[in-house]
Amino acid sequence: MPDIVTAKHLGCFAMTEMGHGSDVASIETTLTYDPETDEIIVDSPTPSATKTYIGNAALHGTSAAVFGQLWVGGKCQGVHCVVVPFRKVTKGKNVDLPGCTSGDNGHKGGLIGVDNGTLRFDHVRVPRANLLSRYGGITDDGSYASEIASSGKRFFTMLGTLVRGRVCVGAGAAIAGRRALSIATRYALRRRQFPSPDGDGEVVLLDYLWHQRRLLPGIAKAYAFGFANNDLIELLAKSRRETVDDDVQRSLESRAAGLKAAQSRWANDVVQVCREACGGAGFISSNQLTQLRSDVDIFATFEGDNTVLMQLVARGLLTGYRETWTGLDRRETVTKTADMVARMVLERTAGRGTVDALVARARRVSNEASVLDRGWQVLMFDERERHVLESLARRYQQAMRLPKGARFGAVNDLQDHLLTLARVHTDRLILGSFVAGIEACEDQAAKRMLNTLCDLYVIENLEADRAWFTDHNFMTQARSKSLTKSLNHLCTEVRPDALALVEGLGIPAEWLGSTMLED
Amino acid sequence: MPDIVTAKHLGCFAMTEMGHGSDVASIETTLTYDPETDEIIVDSPTPSATKTYIGNAALHGTSAAVFGQLWVGGKCQGVHCVVVPFRKVTKGKNVDLPGCTSGDNGHKGGLIGVDNGTLRFDHVRVPRANLLSRYGGITDDGSYASEIASSGKRFFTMLGTLVRGRVCVGAGAAIAGRRALSIATRYALRRRQFPSPDGDGEVVLLDYLWHQRRLLPGIAKAYAFGFANNDLIELLAKSRRETVDDDVQRSLESRAAGLKAAQSRWANDVVQVCREACGGAGFISSNQLTQLRSDVDIFATFEGDNTVLMQLVARGLLTGYRETWTGLDRRETVTKTADMVARMVLERTAGRGTVDALVARARRVSNEASVLDRGWQVLMFDERERHVLESLARRYQQAMRLPKGARFGAVNDLQDHLLTLARVHTDRLILGSFVAGIEACEDQAAKRMLNTLCDLYVIENLEADRAWFTDHNFMTQARSKSLTKSLNHLCTEVRPDALALVEGLGIPAEWLGSTMLED
Repeated sequence: MPDIVTAKHLGCFAMTEMGHGSDVASIETTLTYDPETDEIIVDSPTPSATKTYIGNAALHGTSAAVFGQLWVGGKCQGVHCVVVPFRKVTKGKNVDLPGCTSGDNGHKGGLIGVDNGTLRFDHVRVPRANLLSRYGGITDDGSYASEIASSGKRFFTMLGTLVRGRVCVGAGAAIAGRRALSIATRYALRRRQFPSPDGDGEVVLLDYLWHQRRLLPGIAKAYAFGFANNDLIELLAKSRRETVDDDVQRSLESRAAGLKAAQSRWANDVVQVCREACGGAGFISSNQLTQLRSDVDIFATFEGDNTVLMQLVARGLLTGYRETWTGLDRRETVTKTADMVARMVLERTAGRGTVDALVARARRVSNEASVLDRGWQVLMFDERERHVLESLARRYQQAMRLPKGARFGAVNDLQDHLLTLARVHTDRLILGSFVAGIEACEDQAAKRMLNTLCDLYVIENLEADRAWFTDHNFMTQARSKSLTKSLNHLCTEVRPDALALVEGLGIPAEWLGSTMLED
Repeated sequence: MPDIVTAKHLGCFAMTEMGHGSDVASIETTLTYDPETDEIIVDSPTPSATKTYIGNAALHGTSAAVFGQLWVGGKCQGVHCVVVPFRKVTKGKNVDLPGCTSGDNGHKGGLIGVDNGTLRFDHVRVPRANLLSRYGGITDDGSYASEIASSGKRFFTMLGTLVRGRVCVGAGAAIAGRRALSIATRYALRRRQFPSPDGDGEVVLLDYLWHQRRLLPGIAKAYAFGFANNDLIELLAKSRRETVDDDVQRSLESRAAGLKAAQSRWANDVVQVCREACGGAGFISSNQLTQLRSDVDIFATFEGDNTVLMQLVARGLLTGYRETWTGLDRRETVTKTADMVARMVLERTAGRGTVDALVARARRVSNEASVLDRGWQVLMFDERERHVLESLARRYQQAMRLPKGARFGAVNDLQDHLLTLARVHTDRLILGSFVAGIEACEDQAAKRMLNTLCDLYVIENLEADRAWFTDHNFMTQARSKSLTKSLNHLCTEVRPDALALVEGLGIPAEWLGSTMLED
């Protein structure tokens, strides 16, 4: 452990294989228990069983946590993990241990400081003690034992170890976005281009409406993610401090997955927007934006591909829904639906009590409420999720009634619907955290500013999705049209505080690039 | 000339300065005619007059076409261009010529094979003959002369030389997109992940609906851009072959600007989509996607920043509209509006006659027409542009009536509207080229396929913009909702031909990366 903590002994997390990355359950590496010698035999039976994209495998690691199918007494117990030393360093040179073959994935599109490589095992033996047996292991008498009876549940519990990685990737992506916004906003406040038609000199970039539209909603979203991350990390810390029940654990995994996907998507998009907003200067490496973009790119893929993670989030919601609604007839369903928002599927977040009162009022006025009425806003986010979930559940139920042979097509038809559900669910969680964070803020000036940012976050979100709201009768045409006006107006309102707001994102000066900040 | 053609003598295009890039009219470099010596004195009077991001200036160029304000007899004649030798190579070493100072912009985020640098001039003298005087020059008696009386028109004619650059950048961006799609589609046809619920093995990526939604509309768009580029290049060739009238020249410049912006935006987006669709493999440099993305990034900025170019397109349309409509009263305006689509502002493209008949029929049935009715589709694109242009013209007229001091704010409020106009105008031009291209296709099987691709191009476009269509009563809610279903359906329809379609994009095998195509 001390060598690990001081990074003297570097390890690898060897899960992904050439043949299977997202579909971890199908990995091919075998971990076979040999009762004769009380050892586990680690083997890569096929070329596609080769571990790949493994951090530290090409150069710097010496042992790996290797995931594979555990075979005990001729029976496969599913994916488990075993620690395998695979390399030693002799006279400064890397030498693979017998039966182990490491390789280099070669040059990558970013994160150049990390080496990534491949690992193969040819009947490599390690002691039984190397099996990481928290959720299932081999007893002294050589039989398999686990406290988790269901193999499916055991698998997902095992995958639960990915949560911390996802929390870190999501937060890391958010930092990249903040950094890009801090650079581009500062540039936009210094750089002038084109004389004003009012004859009072050249106009500073951030005074242009479209430049505001490109950067300021991004700043609002950076704050929104900040609050959502705080809540997520609090939930993670709680799950480490105490034993949490299954619901909380599920919620933690779902939030981690949803926020990882949302933040890495956002970071990729906003870094590019910032690069373009800085023109040629944005393309000069010393100004950091292109490097940020290259590094953050893979965040959309590693620690769980975003498309797969979002489906995980949506399937979790469907399961929760099914557990709640199975066996009800139509009338019961309708009755139960009426107050579902507050009760079951949409879990409560801090500050939800206050919001519920606002929502109840907004529900009565609905299309007459101001689009800046927080209650109405939360109502829209809630109703959108509820509607998307209910309609998906109906379609999913129909699809699952089909005979084998017709199922893939039917479920596949729902994939865009699934992804929409994950998106709107995550959006609602983020808004919940934002609202609760504002509620807890004691500085009145900060609170006012946060409220405006929250409006900007919400209105940008609703504006982008306004077709859905009008198509489903949650908004009138007039209201839908007014959202764009509102968005422009909020940008203008936030504009004077732009510098203070990016300062509030907390990026240190030495992370802000070089030439662009010079006169 | 022979040395230029064989790239022995490399030049620089020195327009952009530190202080002014998009706003070329405000560049500060001075070109002052000295009648005593019959020379032009090239000078960088301020630090911000430094030429920057100039290709070949850091290392490989020896002379530059330098843009600056031409002063003759104490009068400024606006931006002109003069050839300035600035470097010689002595014993293999670069030496700046007297009065010239070159610098290096340093490492960039892509296009590493091109050096970019800075140039400064301290009263550097070149012969009068070095002035590129096609649109305006200095006569033997030392006075300024130009065939173009208006200085504004002269400036824009001068900038017309940028057209060829824009055509090339747009087409280059399109190639990058085609290349990325060719790589990602091939990968999606080989890579399998997750077992099918029907129990018949693992599912190939491109069978997943969302994977289809990510890649197939991109392929349709690649074809759409192909036809649009063909028309543009034909127009460019025509303008080189013969003297074209102002309208044709304006249309050429507008198309070049609009298509450059549209294609470079698309290339940036689609290359990223393709990278993500290839997962970890997409991040390995040998598979080319990350390099493509890095290289194509700056296409959004150089040869005209996209946001600026789109405003250029929109302002051109506004000018055309004003020239047509000024002085009409309300009734005349309404009458004239009725057949404007076919007559004035929306110029005719090849094949337009056939389309007009379709449109006339579609207009009568409108919301009952199939969304796959080409007439209805063209009608939607036409009407969207007409409505956006008319409403913008009204708002713009109001803004220009305001007194000085209030104008910037009023015009600035229209910036998003301006950008929308440029987008929907370019979309309509692309559709026009696509329809005409299909019309001209004689192979019936190819024609059928192109028709389906055209549907996919159109439906993705309308689906993304359906809020606008319902907000403005061009579509019912039911029709708007049906677009997503249609989009999914078209993806499924195109799916079996995916390989043939990317082969049709014409990317040679050696451009398709390495490891991903191996077994």
